[in-house]
Amino acid sequence: MLLIDKPVKEFLDVLESKEPTPGGGSVAALSGSLGAALTAMVGNLTVGRKAFEALDEPTKEHFKKNFNAVIELKRRLNVLVDKDVEAFDLFMAALKMPKETEEEKAIRSKAMEEATIEALEVPLTTANECLNILKLQKVFAENGNVNAITDVGVGALMAYAGVEGALFNVIINLKSLSDNAYIEKKKAECEGILAEAKALKEEVLSITYAKLA
Amino acid sequence: MLLIDKPVKEFLDVLESKEPTPGGGSVAALSGSLGAALTAMVGNLTVGRKAFEALDEPTKEHFKKNFNAVIELKRRLNVLVDKDVEAFDLFMAALKMPKETEEEKAIRSKAMEEATIEALEVPLTTANECLNILKLQKVFAENGNVNAITDVGVGALMAYAGVEGALFNVIINLKSLSDNAYIEKKKAECEGILAEAKALKEEVLSITYAKLA
Repeated sequence: MLLIDKPVKEFLDVLESKEPTPGGGSVAALSGSLGAALTAMVGNLTVGRKAFEALDEPTKEHFKKNFNAVIELKRRLNVLVDKDVEAFDLFMAALKMPKETEEEKAIRSKAMEEATIEALEVPLTTANECLNILKLQKVFAENGNVNAITDVGVGALMAYAGVEGALFNVIINLKSLSDNAYIEKKKAECEGILAEAKALKEEVLSITYAKLA
Repeated sequence: MLLIDKPVKEFLDVLESKEPTPGGGSVAALSGSLGAALTAMVGNLTVGRKAFEALDEPTKEHFKKNFNAVIELKRRLNVLVDKDVEAFDLFMAALKMPKETEEEKAIRSKAMEEATIEALEVPLTTANECLNILKLQKVFAENGNVNAITDVGVGALMAYAGVEGALFNVIINLKSLSDNAYIEKKKAECEGILAEAKALKEEVLSITYAKLA
């Protein structure tokens, strides 16, 4: 059974168990999905209402475009919740490969490297999708139903936690690789994503706090 | 059916819908519960292992005490996921009370005030319970299974998002109250919780980043 199909309570129990999966990578994807769903809820509480209809056409179009995009991000992040577990299982399978002969050692080592890259690319995708949510949220904070402003704020917090949390899982996997050029490239990518996410989150939260003041 | 018993995917769909509940208050509680469950997983991956058994007795005791406490916080936060919806329903019920006569208006007004206070006390409890998770996590970051350090980091991010997200829901409800002494007292409480949560999160994250470096 997929994690995403489990009852919430059961998901939390499996998370708590001593099994290493699901772990932080799946939680980061779920955090993003929760942020996307909350943002989409604000869209649902906004479009069609008087205050929204009174906005100028470009703003309305921009809002609707971002609304559709955030629903698509939720769908993708739901998939990533389970994909993170698959990637870890792949790594565990490689770890258990025979390592008696030199040939077996070489095959195992290559399989482990490939599995590590997969275990790193999945949370990197999660981080990017969570960042994409943050890129969409400003118009919800500015023009969404003001009664739901706290939901935009919580949505930004969840998306941001998804970014930073997923990046932890990228960084830890980089540690076991040896290709320095690849490592440096990915590290720079992580730093760029985190910095952009931080700035976008701060922007959405400051609009939220201003509307709450 | 309780939210906590719904499949994760369905929870996300109900969240996205145009119904105002569940909203950010339930997500904040769930975020805390995810943080508590991840922290408890690190506990399960730590206790009984050689590195843990080699620690001095007071550290082991401290770890185990926090481990038990975090499991209890997960249980309480699971309850708060649904309690947030109940509090909102109570408010909606008060909003729909008759308001023809002066007497009806007075009764409705009092019911709305009481419902607002309940709708504010629930997320305030959520914020406090999420803060309690952060208070427990340092020993997991310092002495937990080092292979699960990213899970401690993600746990801190989720607990922190739970704190700040829940506080948004306290603040918005304060806006519709009139008792200034009560408002000021609660505002100060919110500020104190947020500042403490921020400092604790930074502490756990800096240990996480140091171990990943």
